[in-house]
Amino acid sequence: MVQIDALIFNEIPKGKPIPGQTLKKVQQELDLDAPLQDGEILVKTTALSLDPYQRGRMRPEEVESYVPAFKLGQPIDNFGVGEVVKSSNSQFQKGQRVYGYLKFQTYQVVSKEATAGLRVLENKEGLPWTNWVGAAGMPGQTAWYAIEKLSGLKKGESVFISGAMGPVGQLAIALAHKIGAKVVASAGSKEKCDFLKNELKVERVFNYKEEDPNQVLAAWNKEQGKPFEVYIDNVAGPQLEAALNHIGKRGRIVAIGAINDYNGEPYGIKNIFYVVGKELRYEGFIILNRMTPELFKEFYSEIPPALASGEFAKPKEHIFNGLDNGEAFASLFDSQNSNFGKAVISLE
Amino acid sequence: MVQIDALIFNEIPKGKPIPGQTLKKVQQELDLDAPLQDGEILVKTTALSLDPYQRGRMRPEEVESYVPAFKLGQPIDNFGVGEVVKSSNSQFQKGQRVYGYLKFQTYQVVSKEATAGLRVLENKEGLPWTNWVGAAGMPGQTAWYAIEKLSGLKKGESVFISGAMGPVGQLAIALAHKIGAKVVASAGSKEKCDFLKNELKVERVFNYKEEDPNQVLAAWNKEQGKPFEVYIDNVAGPQLEAALNHIGKRGRIVAIGAINDYNGEPYGIKNIFYVVGKELRYEGFIILNRMTPELFKEFYSEIPPALASGEFAKPKEHIFNGLDNGEAFASLFDSQNSNFGKAVISLE
Repeated sequence: MVQIDALIFNEIPKGKPIPGQTLKKVQQELDLDAPLQDGEILVKTTALSLDPYQRGRMRPEEVESYVPAFKLGQPIDNFGVGEVVKSSNSQFQKGQRVYGYLKFQTYQVVSKEATAGLRVLENKEGLPWTNWVGAAGMPGQTAWYAIEKLSGLKKGESVFISGAMGPVGQLAIALAHKIGAKVVASAGSKEKCDFLKNELKVERVFNYKEEDPNQVLAAWNKEQGKPFEVYIDNVAGPQLEAALNHIGKRGRIVAIGAINDYNGEPYGIKNIFYVVGKELRYEGFIILNRMTPELFKEFYSEIPPALASGEFAKPKEHIFNGLDNGEAFASLFDSQNSNFGKAVISLE
Repeated sequence: MVQIDALIFNEIPKGKPIPGQTLKKVQQELDLDAPLQDGEILVKTTALSLDPYQRGRMRPEEVESYVPAFKLGQPIDNFGVGEVVKSSNSQFQKGQRVYGYLKFQTYQVVSKEATAGLRVLENKEGLPWTNWVGAAGMPGQTAWYAIEKLSGLKKGESVFISGAMGPVGQLAIALAHKIGAKVVASAGSKEKCDFLKNELKVERVFNYKEEDPNQVLAAWNKEQGKPFEVYIDNVAGPQLEAALNHIGKRGRIVAIGAINDYNGEPYGIKNIFYVVGKELRYEGFIILNRMTPELFKEFYSEIPPALASGEFAKPKEHIFNGLDNGEAFASLFDSQNSNFGKAVISLE
């Protein structure tokens, strides 16, 4: 028997999640020597992703949504990387690292059924394991699908990216630059803005709390001699309204998040009529529903090598060591926080 | 010299247009016997379309938009049908009817340049001339493009159509039924609702002023065992919000108008986050920018014959005889009005 840590869904939050109340760390016992059932594997968790969409899973089970609700009293889960320490499944060998849905536990037995969702990571590129839940994981796929499959962004165009210091934003910037497009990006602190400007070489950066997005976008359009063509929307709210005001005719808006509306009262968008007047195409998606085996192949052949070679900037990650009482998760909703980059828990 | 009537853009309206103030009828003199310049034609106006989008043209000239502003002191224009009474242009013969932008005047000389935008109507189908600015004109093209080219509506699906007694709505209903889809339609008076139900055989009709669209759509979804898949949005505002609440995953919203927001304070849409959560495709368009020669050919080979044969219900038109002081145009924005159907001015 060993003591393992687990992060439990303890209480449905009203607004922002509260550490120790919404989520709570508990210690459990697990017998690492117990025999595995046929098809099971025992995994030592390496890294766990923290993502805003998990807030949407902290709801009453009877409320339907695009992802299942977390169960009260049970550990939460999300994409993670783990090391196989014991296997009764011919698809997985001891020592391999696997990627997929894992519980927020330091060790876990993965059932035969659940192993079907796991993918063995070869990591020939030698990326840090945490990258595989960030730029080389679901957030990276989201950015890649948004820019390359939906936005139609072309060389010589410009793209506005909100929430740009999130893991989706970072890779979206790299992909936009690779295409030959210019980027206007927003974030919520001076540190984040400095990073976007200095490290990611974003052409125009603004702190949405200090500068009016309408003024920034109007000035950008004037400077470029034409309005920006694409908006990658992480936030909804007033920045979406400003984007609608200033995006060009036949503009494309790709919606990947609405973090402004996730906690508390949503913002009322008062200029949605531009969808008609400017003939916009405004499309949202959930990457979990979009990635086919062909798309995975394409993504993995393109993104991890570009990260490893330095063609794309090294992903900025904020690594939390070990499971806490939910402070790490709560930090996702605190834009004052000077920590930034893709939030990930490391258990190595 | 003859006296002709002209409808002048007299004053920029603040909210709804005011008859006699925003628009004003004047009498002008025109010498029908004066020789035409090379390429000109003299047209006796047959019918003129009245459309809500014309409100957007009643603005200061310096404000940019997708259609040019009307000039103060000059006659307004729109799509119309006219009879060629004299021609100095080899493309047009006396007695032919032409379709295109015409001034709101009983007679008019069309310049050589402007004749390039006119199309000769053969009308082999024998439709009333007024139909050619309605179901067989721009509003019909709008409905056809929305349903057949953008919505992806399929047999067995259902579609919510707001502002359904407008000319776009009427043809959209016919096209949806032809595909084998069911229709939920809204309008703003008992008379309109009765017409939609009894004449257009719409499966579920509601008066948006008396019934809550959220309740109607929730009940519809329950009855069908699945949510509706497509929303054709003529209005924006609370009906768009209700559609976002109740449309199914991967739903398609085609935006063709926002009449709720055209006069006065726009409504704030508070659930735009569903574009992400439900992976919606929400697209707007201006038919004037979309119709290619190929699409015109397709449209004219499909729609006028279906109207003439009775396969589609006879378009409901509200015909105003002669030019007035703008009362006819103002009626477009008065949903209390018991007159309904495509508003058109007949000058025959």
